[in-house]
Amino acid sequence: MTDLESIKRLQELEKQIKARMSTVKHKIAVISGKGGVGKSTFTVNLAVALAANGHMNTIGILDADFHGPSVPKMLGLMGKTLQVSSEGVSPAIGPMGIRIVSTEFLLPDENTPVIWRGPLKVNAIRDFLSDIVWGELDFLLIDLPPGTGDEPLSIAQLLPDLDGVIVVTIPSQVSQIVVKKAVNFSKRLNLPVIGIVENMSGFICPNCSAKVDIFQSGGGKKISEELNVPFLGSIPIDQKICEDADNGKPFIIEHKDSPAAEAFMEIVKKIDKFINSKESTLGKSAIQKTKIHKRSAR
Amino acid sequence: MTDLESIKRLQELEKQIKARMSTVKHKIAVISGKGGVGKSTFTVNLAVALAANGHMNTIGILDADFHGPSVPKMLGLMGKTLQVSSEGVSPAIGPMGIRIVSTEFLLPDENTPVIWRGPLKVNAIRDFLSDIVWGELDFLLIDLPPGTGDEPLSIAQLLPDLDGVIVVTIPSQVSQIVVKKAVNFSKRLNLPVIGIVENMSGFICPNCSAKVDIFQSGGGKKISEELNVPFLGSIPIDQKICEDADNGKPFIIEHKDSPAAEAFMEIVKKIDKFINSKESTLGKSAIQKTKIHKRSAR
Repeated sequence: MTDLESIKRLQELEKQIKARMSTVKHKIAVISGKGGVGKSTFTVNLAVALAANGHMNTIGILDADFHGPSVPKMLGLMGKTLQVSSEGVSPAIGPMGIRIVSTEFLLPDENTPVIWRGPLKVNAIRDFLSDIVWGELDFLLIDLPPGTGDEPLSIAQLLPDLDGVIVVTIPSQVSQIVVKKAVNFSKRLNLPVIGIVENMSGFICPNCSAKVDIFQSGGGKKISEELNVPFLGSIPIDQKICEDADNGKPFIIEHKDSPAAEAFMEIVKKIDKFINSKESTLGKSAIQKTKIHKRSAR
Repeated sequence: MTDLESIKRLQELEKQIKARMSTVKHKIAVISGKGGVGKSTFTVNLAVALAANGHMNTIGILDADFHGPSVPKMLGLMGKTLQVSSEGVSPAIGPMGIRIVSTEFLLPDENTPVIWRGPLKVNAIRDFLSDIVWGELDFLLIDLPPGTGDEPLSIAQLLPDLDGVIVVTIPSQVSQIVVKKAVNFSKRLNLPVIGIVENMSGFICPNCSAKVDIFQSGGGKKISEELNVPFLGSIPIDQKICEDADNGKPFIIEHKDSPAAEAFMEIVKKIDKFINSKESTLGKSAIQKTKIHKRSAR
């Protein structure tokens, strides 16, 4: 392909992404900077919480963690594949009609590694956004891998109307340093930060009820104050969260009365509020635009 | 730069890497596939354990996690910078004379994200291996970021005489899937797998001594059997490990009598055994080579 041909191809793809994304109302990315803080667990449970609260069949998850895709396992969808039709590629369907796309669905088996350098990952994200028939969605949640490299950069560039990012951290100082970098990454790219979630925040022994701060606590609130971004809440450590993820069942359904699930639902309320306030502002500005338009049309 | 010039430049760099690495006896990479499993904690404590056991002033750590560098924080070296001389760039010096190189030392402050796409990270690894004056080292430990992308691929290609990789996992099934991919990545690239470490394996409540499998347990042994690679051991969860990391103190020194530190030292013994058996095989083959050489010289 000549340079001119590849530029044309890219322009076509971007047009296609715009068309595909026109049926998606809200796009939220879940990032962290640091790995293993519970991004995928958070994404999956957020999807289920939104679906259960008025958005049945209208939630999508793009698992953009190519090297460590965990969403299919956490939703009990291992072994599924994506169906191709003349319209494009259809997502796998999970509980409550959640539509999921993950590299895991494209691999011959779960042991196969995805050995891709940056440019290949960038192409894959472009393809996922342009070829997948997402359909009418209220929310597309994008589960990003740790770091501030190719994947989050591509999402920021290909989805200029992203509603915002949710930043997940664990309380430790080591995590705080890395997660602060992720918040500043978002600021530099003008991505709205919906807020910070502190995951694995303290552990209550199920035997004696003693509280043990395995990964410390309070770090999430600290960086939200330091960097002047909203704090969404803390989720305690609960061994049932890991068990449920391994069993492919969202813990906010399986253990909905646990303190962790309750903390999680408080966070969802804040995210909902962010989206609603955005919608009402957008609504207002749309009304204003119409007014201005009418005025100038006079 | 023309294509020919860049090829020449790359060849020069590779020659330079070979020269720099000729003074390093052993090179070990720590990988995982999945983030947040404790790779950096493991690397830092392995460095200290080796230094304390006959390798004082001859251990190096290359922190190749550009987006989430944690080694400087864990060794109490935040705010340090690298010194440049006519010979090259000198590593920062940590406890027991451990020589450390990390992108963290190159940033204006700890909040700055490293927003790099793949090719930039590949260049940085090449520079770290070619420009750093590592000096005489018994061990260079390379702390790799999660995933099977640019950074581990570059290390595999630039260091063909890598002794092997240590694969760290947490016990959960979700982690097992991702870590199996990392083991298969190593096999595909012909990197010897020294073994698998199961980190965060069960938690003993410090108040009532009940054992709680927060992230399950047994997953590390399971994948080592499934994939036919050595199992090095399990390290239990201990809130002091996180505390010590945040305080920049290696827990195997600070809490050397804890079950976690004892489990860790058992693992170090196995790594030592691997290296020694390799050395004695290499020694034999060197003797054989000399004999053959003498024979053919007759």
